[in-house]
Formats: sequence, structure tokens, C-alpha cells
Amino acid sequence: MKAFEVRAPHDFGIVDIDAPQADAGEVLVSVAFVGICGSDMHIIHGDNAFVRFPRITGHEFAGVVAAVGEGVAGVTAGDRVCIDPVINCGECYPCRIGRPNVCTRLEVIGVHRNGGFEQHVSVPAGNVHHLPESVGLDQAALVEPYTIACNVLDRMQPHDGDALLILGAGVIGLTILQVARAKGLTDITVCDVIDERLEVARSLGAHHAVNGQREDLEAVMSERSGGEGIPLIADAACVPALFPQLARIASPAGRIGLLGFDTTPSDLVQLEVIKKELTIVGSRLNNRKFPEVIEMLASGRLDATALVSHRLPFAEMSDAIHLIDHHPERARKVLIAFDS
Amino acid sequence: MKAFEVRAPHDFGIVDIDAPQADAGEVLVSVAFVGICGSDMHIIHGDNAFVRFPRITGHEFAGVVAAVGEGVAGVTAGDRVCIDPVINCGECYPCRIGRPNVCTRLEVIGVHRNGGFEQHVSVPAGNVHHLPESVGLDQAALVEPYTIACNVLDRMQPHDGDALLILGAGVIGLTILQVARAKGLTDITVCDVIDERLEVARSLGAHHAVNGQREDLEAVMSERSGGEGIPLIADAACVPALFPQLARIASPAGRIGLLGFDTTPSDLVQLEVIKKELTIVGSRLNNRKFPEVIEMLASGRLDATALVSHRLPFAEMSDAIHLIDHHPERARKVLIAFDS
Repeated sequence: MKAFEVRAPHDFGIVDIDAPQADAGEVLVSVAFVGICGSDMHIIHGDNAFVRFPRITGHEFAGVVAAVGEGVAGVTAGDRVCIDPVINCGECYPCRIGRPNVCTRLEVIGVHRNGGFEQHVSVPAGNVHHLPESVGLDQAALVEPYTIACNVLDRMQPHDGDALLILGAGVIGLTILQVARAKGLTDITVCDVIDERLEVARSLGAHHAVNGQREDLEAVMSERSGGEGIPLIADAACVPALFPQLARIASPAGRIGLLGFDTTPSDLVQLEVIKKELTIVGSRLNNRKFPEVIEMLASGRLDATALVSHRLPFAEMSDAIHLIDHHPERARKVLIAFDS
Repeated sequence: MKAFEVRAPHDFGIVDIDAPQADAGEVLVSVAFVGICGSDMHIIHGDNAFVRFPRITGHEFAGVVAAVGEGVAGVTAGDRVCIDPVINCGECYPCRIGRPNVCTRLEVIGVHRNGGFEQHVSVPAGNVHHLPESVGLDQAALVEPYTIACNVLDRMQPHDGDALLILGAGVIGLTILQVARAKGLTDITVCDVIDERLEVARSLGAHHAVNGQREDLEAVMSERSGGEGIPLIADAACVPALFPQLARIASPAGRIGLLGFDTTPSDLVQLEVIKKELTIVGSRLNNRKFPEVIEMLASGRLDATALVSHRLPFAEMSDAIHLIDHHPERARKVLIAFDS
């Protein structure tokens, strides 16, 4: 079968390999669609410390069950499924308190073991989620990025009527916007420095859009909130130098969600955090959010296709990589289709 | 009546003033005991930006109701009470979501209006909490500092069996220790740099004590947790330079509670926060924690007298101030008694 293999940083291509078998407890999925994520790009470029090469990446995928291994119940060949990439041990501290996505022995499909950039992939049966008929396999491949958005919003505990500021109108920022809309938030501002991206944010339902290069975000948000500040701030841009501004923009009892893997320290002024009793939360991967997103797609509250800028056949993987590397202004979510 | 008035920074003393009346909706309390808090000292030394002078400070006090104003129900002369210093508007964003302690129009008794360092003080009826017979007025005066501890622990959402690290064995650190014990936590480490304080922490039930000057706290905590990290960290020392160490000590899904009004920035490394999905919370004053602390005292699960290092009569207020300023190693909680 064909697989897109990253042999080493910057050394990748489509190879012919033996198809995996469905081991005991596992399910063999014939992949229909797989999305390219920024973290696939990090692996390709050698910017991910966790990965070991060679690796078949891809953690945003959906397909049809081809076979099931010994001991698997509730999944049969022909089932349409998408796959939660989070594999956890169930025993460590975070697992015990219901936080499997930061399991101390975490494995991520597509990072620590092979993922969706191959015609057939074997995954643990527990990571498989069935799809209702109304959810196409193309949309289903994008459940994972929307679980990222669900996760950070859940960590930020929105209240009815809360205003939300999203920093960054890249794919993560846009998924947060769409999920926040689906959850009923009615006052969402998206900030970016690229007007084209802000246009997309507006088209996806952002109530306000701010170009942070031309406008003073802090002044705009203060005025918009009548000086009270913004309860919810999701940083999907990850510019560490901006953090102090986010803390000032936050309202008393505000929650700031962070998503970026940056090692440059931000300035955290404790006075600001205590005076307003802020809550600053990290968000990583997703904590059992697949059912929620699948339901949002099935009910039509969420349209995953709106995120897709390009669809390319698997044979054009290298072109897809090139597109994302060289035309970030045009490439939102690039979806790869396998021949069925 | 007598009152201890701060006329301006460093200019304070006992003065004779007219006793206040209980206005409509207010209760006149004859103060029995009042504790001296670090924030009283900040006001005395001119280190509190919120206060306006002259001011009668004191927000840790209990006494007997002397009179009630018009429209007050449920409180009568002779009732034994202690007083929540948090006065909130009930209408702003934090009030609407149940966070009155960071009300945008917050008033604190003893900071924004006169507090307990006077023989009679008038307070809103809603801030008065009745005391069961088993709780003495001396203990009741210290309900407020224990609510600080309850608040930060509540913000940190302990799970059964969570290990807790407390930085600083001053009064706040010790109240957190005592409340954590009362809530059933069974693995509490206190870190300080003064051995005498660590001895006190041990005597109040700390399971482990670490002198951060002689021992490598990070290595000790890593070993103690088998490399998994510590789920709960309360920073009652507020040394901003230590924050990166706390983030490293925290377990995945760990919660770090901050309490200090320091303007020196700490280094916040987002990678660390996201990788482990940390939650960093500020904690200010208390959010309706008086009933919980009163119940802990009434049931004997909490012994407030253990915190008291000195009891002095009101006439010796200036000596008490001197003691705290010049002998911090000896002075824990200094309790001032009025003649009854």
C-alpha cells in the first residue's frame, strides 16, 4: 500500500509498504480523508522533539473499517469512523482525574505511532468513533481540529453571554470561532494582522475583526466592554510578548486559554492575575471531545467544509506540503483524499 | 470611643472619635477581637494604592451586635458575629457569574471604608455571619484569614489524595496548610527558608517541610512524586523569580494558585503550560467562604488559636505594630483584644 513517510526532517515522500494488520484490540481503517495540521509540518521540518523517525504522520483522518482485531466489540468492517489520536494509560495521575490528554505516558497517533497518511492504518478500537450518516468522511476528517477548539473553550468555562476574544485567525483560531458560535456565544472578536484572514473570520461569523497592526487592540477591547474587560481570551497566535496585554484586556474573573508550544517566556505580572483573579489555562489536544464535535456536525451547527481551502489527492502530498510552506496566506486547511 | 487611626503612611495612633451609628441596612458591631494582617501593615506603611487616608483599618474581626439600622432583619443586638469584609455591587460581570470578590466596584471593609480597629464599627447587614456557641470570638476574628486559604484551595480544585506544595510558612501559608488538613489532604509539603517557621508548619500538621535555601526543592518534589510532579501548588511566598520552578514542579493537569500583589514579572513559558495543561489561578480575598470556615471551626476540624503568636490589648496597638515590623520571625498572627 502507499504511505507518505517522513524519513527524517525535510526528507519525505510516498513509499510502498506492507499494509498493517489489525492486532488484538485494534481496528484497521481504510483512510478516506486526512487533514494536514501545523504539527505535521513541524514534524516534517524537524521541529517536534517527541517524534522518532521514520514516521507516517497524520492525526486528522476518517475512513471505513477494513478489518477488526481479536477481542474488538462494537466495531465491524464497513463502519464509517473517525479517530481520536489520544492514547492514554488510564492509570497515571492525569488519567485518574479525567485528563487523559495529558497522560504521563501519552501516545498520539501520527506522532508517537503511525497515523493517517497511509491507505490503511491500525488504531486502538477505543479511539474509533462512529459517524452518523449525515456526516461525510471529508468533514469527519476534521473532527480532530474542532476538538482542539472544544477543549480550549471547555478549559475556559464560558458563561452565557460572555464576550470572547480570539487572537489569530489561522486554522486553530477559526475552529475556536466556529465552535464558539456553535455553542451560542454572541460577541466574538477575532484579531489578526492579515486582512485576508480577518475577512475569512468575518465570513465564518466573527462579530468583530481587529487588525492588531493597525488598531490598538487593548483600547478597542476596553471601549467595547465599557471598561469592564473581556471574560474569555483564546490565544491561538502564540506571540509570547503579547501575554501582558491579554492579562490587561481580561475582565475580572477572566479566563485566558493558551495553545502554543513556545519556549520564549512571557511576562506574567502576578498583581494583575490576583487583582482580577484571572484563570490562565493551557490546552493540549482534546479531552474526549469527539462525541461533542460529531454531534455538532451532525446537527448542522458546525460546517467543517468551511475550513477547507484545498482538496488534493494523496498522490499530490508533496505539492500540498509546498503549498502550506509557501502560501500560508492562501492555505487554510488542506485536505488529502485517498482513492476509494 | 477609641479607634486606631492611620492618618497617613507611618502616621498612626489611637484617637477618640464619635461612635458611628447603624445606618439603614447596617449593623453596629462592638468589636471584641481584631487580627492584624499583612495588608494592614501595607496600609500603615503606605504600600496600598487603593486606600484613602485617614483610615481605620482592620478586616479580621468579630464581636457582638450593639444595634441594628432600619430595615435589617435576622440580626439583633447581642448576636455574636464575625464580618466578611467583601462588599460587592451584585450587578457587574464578576458579580453576575458568582465572583463577588473581584467585583468591579469592590469595597473592602478596613480598606475602602472603616474596619475593625475601633470599639464600634458599622457594617452592611449582609456581611454579618452568626457564630455558633462553640466558636469563641477570638477564633471568630480569624475566620477571614482562613477564608483566604479556602478561596485559593477552592480555586485550585483539589481532588482526593492530591499532594499539595505550599510555598511560604507565613500566616497565609499556615492557614492554607490548616485548611488543607481540615479538607482531608494527606500529603502536604511546606517550603520556607526559615527553620523556625518550618517547625511551626510541622506542628500544624505539614507532612513534609523543605528548607528551600538548603535543599533543591525541585529535585525533592520530583523524587517524592516519583517524577510525576505535584498536582497542587499554592504560592504564599510570592517570589516572582520562583514561578518557572513551580511550573516545572507541577504535575500534568496541575493547578498553581497565586496570592501575591507583586508587580515584578515572572517568566511564564507557554510550552510548559500547554504540555502539561496547567491551570494558573489568582486568588483574592474570599468568595463567600465564611460559612465554610465557621463550620470547620465549630466542628473542631480547624483550630484558629494555633495561628496566634501574640494577644495584646487594644491600648498596645503601637507595640503590636512594632513587634510585627521588627520581629517577623516571632510574630505570626497578632490578635488585638478590646475590653468587653
